[in-house]
Amino acid sequence: MTDKSIDEWIAERSEMNEQVFSVAGLEMKRFFSLDGQTYRPGILDAKTKELLGLVASLVLRCDDCILYHTIRCREEGVDAKAFEETLMVGLLVGGSIVIPHLRRAVARWMELDARGSEGARLG
Amino acid sequence: MTDKSIDEWIAERSEMNEQVFSVAGLEMKRFFSLDGQTYRPGILDAKTKELLGLVASLVLRCDDCILYHTIRCREEGVDAKAFEETLMVGLLVGGSIVIPHLRRAVARWMELDARGSEGARLG
Amino acid sequence: MTDKSIDEWIAERSEMNEQVFSVAGLEMKRFFSLDGQTYRPGILDAKTKELLGLVASLVLRCDDCILYHTIRCREEGVDAKAFEETLMVGLLVGGSIVIPHLRRAVARWMELDARGSEGARLG
Amino acid sequence: MTDKSIDEWIAERSEMNEQVFSVAGLEMKRFFSLDGQTYRPGILDAKTKELLGLVASLVLRCDDCILYHTIRCREEGVDAKAFEETLMVGLLVGGSIVIPHLRRAVARWMELDARGSEGARLG
Amino acid sequence: MTDKSIDEWIAERSEMNEQVFSVAGLEMKRFFSLDGQTYRPGILDAKTKELLGLVASLVLRCDDCILYHTIRCREEGVDAKAFEETLMVGLLVGGSIVIPHLRRAVARWMELDARGSEGARLG
Amino acid sequence: MTDKSIDEWIAERSEMNEQVFSVAGLEMKRFFSLDGQTYRPGILDAKTKELLGLVASLVLRCDDCILYHTIRCREEGVDAKAFEETLMVGLLVGGSIVIPHLRRAVARWMELDARGSEGARLG
Repeated sequence: MTDKSIDEWIAERSEMNEQVFSVAGLEMKRFFSLDGQTYRPGILDAKTKELLGLVASLVLRCDDCILYHTIRCREEGVDAKAFEETLMVGLLVGGSIVIPHLRRAVARWMELDARGSEGARLG
Repeated sequence: MTDKSIDEWIAERSEMNEQVFSVAGLEMKRFFSLDGQTYRPGILDAKTKELLGLVASLVLRCDDCILYHTIRCREEGVDAKAFEETLMVGLLVGGSIVIPHLRRAVARWMELDARGSEGARLG
Repeated sequence: MTDKSIDEWIAERSEMNEQVFSVAGLEMKRFFSLDGQTYRPGILDAKTKELLGLVASLVLRCDDCILYHTIRCREEGVDAKAFEETLMVGLLVGGSIVIPHLRRAVARWMELDARGSEGARLG
Repeated sequence: MTDKSIDEWIAERSEMNEQVFSVAGLEMKRFFSLDGQTYRPGILDAKTKELLGLVASLVLRCDDCILYHTIRCREEGVDAKAFEETLMVGLLVGGSIVIPHLRRAVARWMELDARGSEGARLG
Repeated sequence: MTDKSIDEWIAERSEMNEQVFSVAGLEMKRFFSLDGQTYRPGILDAKTKELLGLVASLVLRCDDCILYHTIRCREEGVDAKAFEETLMVGLLVGGSIVIPHLRRAVARWMELDARGSEGARLG
Repeated sequence: MTDKSIDEWIAERSEMNEQVFSVAGLEMKRFFSLDGQTYRPGILDAKTKELLGLVASLVLRCDDCILYHTIRCREEGVDAKAFEETLMVGLLVGGSIVIPHLRRAVARWMELDARGSEGARLG
């Protein structure tokens, strides 16, 4: 995964989402809609919800989901230390099997750092 | 699990922890120690870290871990709505397979409600 | 789990569902609603969808979900051989770690057999 | 995975299978043999068994297994709507963590569509 | 699980195995047979294979499988320290989510200790 | 993963580890340290511990972890038959969903064979 640039990843994800919607029935569309709604600010702000999504993705070991929430975390202004502490909870709970995903999460964070203030924009 | 009272669960957990420590080597003791350190307040406060532990436990579907973090959430002053929103992130990410654990999490929350202000105290 | 009768399990599940709904926000209610809609007959009939739910529950190793789909399978008229073949796909894909759940699935099927034509009725 | 063509994937899979057989002991050979036998038509036809294999692969989140069963589904004449409904059961049961695999499954289905009636042939 | 005695657990397991065999098709019988064959001594002795089965069961978090391999480990003469080191590998790889199962594994080991030299006999 | 050479994989892993350490807090550093300590010889020799790490990685289906332990197994002098028997335990416990990872494990073993006596050296 790390071999694809973030922009390529975003473009590919966007294209594949369109393919999914072109075949999706009503239930599948509702699931995707619910996915968006769940991360909207409630009692918990968007930042905290993204950290929850990140740690869940880390312990379930899904690189795509980790990258998605990493980008979203930065959009919401999560700083490097909060990102690291969240990864640490995931590492502790999920164990050393999580380490390869942790490595890629940190590599992606730094890739986003190198882009500077503009960040990445999800399609 | 729901058939054991919270106090019985705490007592049994405490007794089994002692058994583990009686056989644990240095590495195992370090792991348990690291477990405690990870949830200490950092940039993220203890409340947020407990929510992270809760959602990770929910998507990995471990009733004991969910109950532990539910008790800890209440000790840190998490309110019912923040608890529900955290469960919702876990339900969305982890899917309907999570529902039985979600049910038991809510049942335990209400059991703790019924105890009033005294709460539960982990051994 | 096998120590609780099917009727006790159904009653407890129903009671806990009510507790969940009493605290659930809009997203959680939508998820539960979507859960029901997904198993409605489409191109695939309800029987096939229940077999899909059963095998998914087996490889993910959730006894409550397995029991739920076992009851639903019988309501939809799945016969013993189709049930066994579905379990076999789950055993093959999921491996020997699935065996304890397979044992309990078969035990529950036989418990339902012993109830005769009336079956079990989900609340 | 999506960056490898289906024909490359089939060729690589075939080559690696030969490597496995060259080192496999009796038990491993029996497991592979049992793998083939399990999907043969019984009370359930081959089509339904492939849908079971597909949904199990989706909730366990294995892209290779999903692609394999996607190819097999088409060989057995599964149509686009039955494929989508099966994916939907997997999405519901397995949650949003399944989405990246769902995207790739749909992309592969469309890649097979584009090949027309000839389909793909597993080695 | 810890609330059932080891003898009750063995008896129940044995009874449920009989139920499974009464409905099992040829493939399922072959799977169970392969299960037994895999742990027979080869280049690796039975003791090492049981440790492999134990650590796999621990990281996959199946109490029944852990208890089974714990009993088998003792039958093969695994000592307390080798048991602990194996659990430690599982704890490290699988993370803190493994802890409740680790606790129950140690509790079962001690329960077997208390039975003295006779050990437990699997049906 | 199989498309990256072992030397490229080692170099990339080493570089990403440095990135992780550059952001890691005390707890994360302790976890990585504990990771190393756990595989040191105790009552169980290093070879057996690597086989335990291998089977745990296989049933949890992490290619990076499998490759790491495959390299380590060879450094500790594990022979081809012990490697195969360990994979077989993982295949049995983890099921056919493990097969793609098993294929890649065998392919990597053979890639290491082709390098001859020099082996691979982890950074």
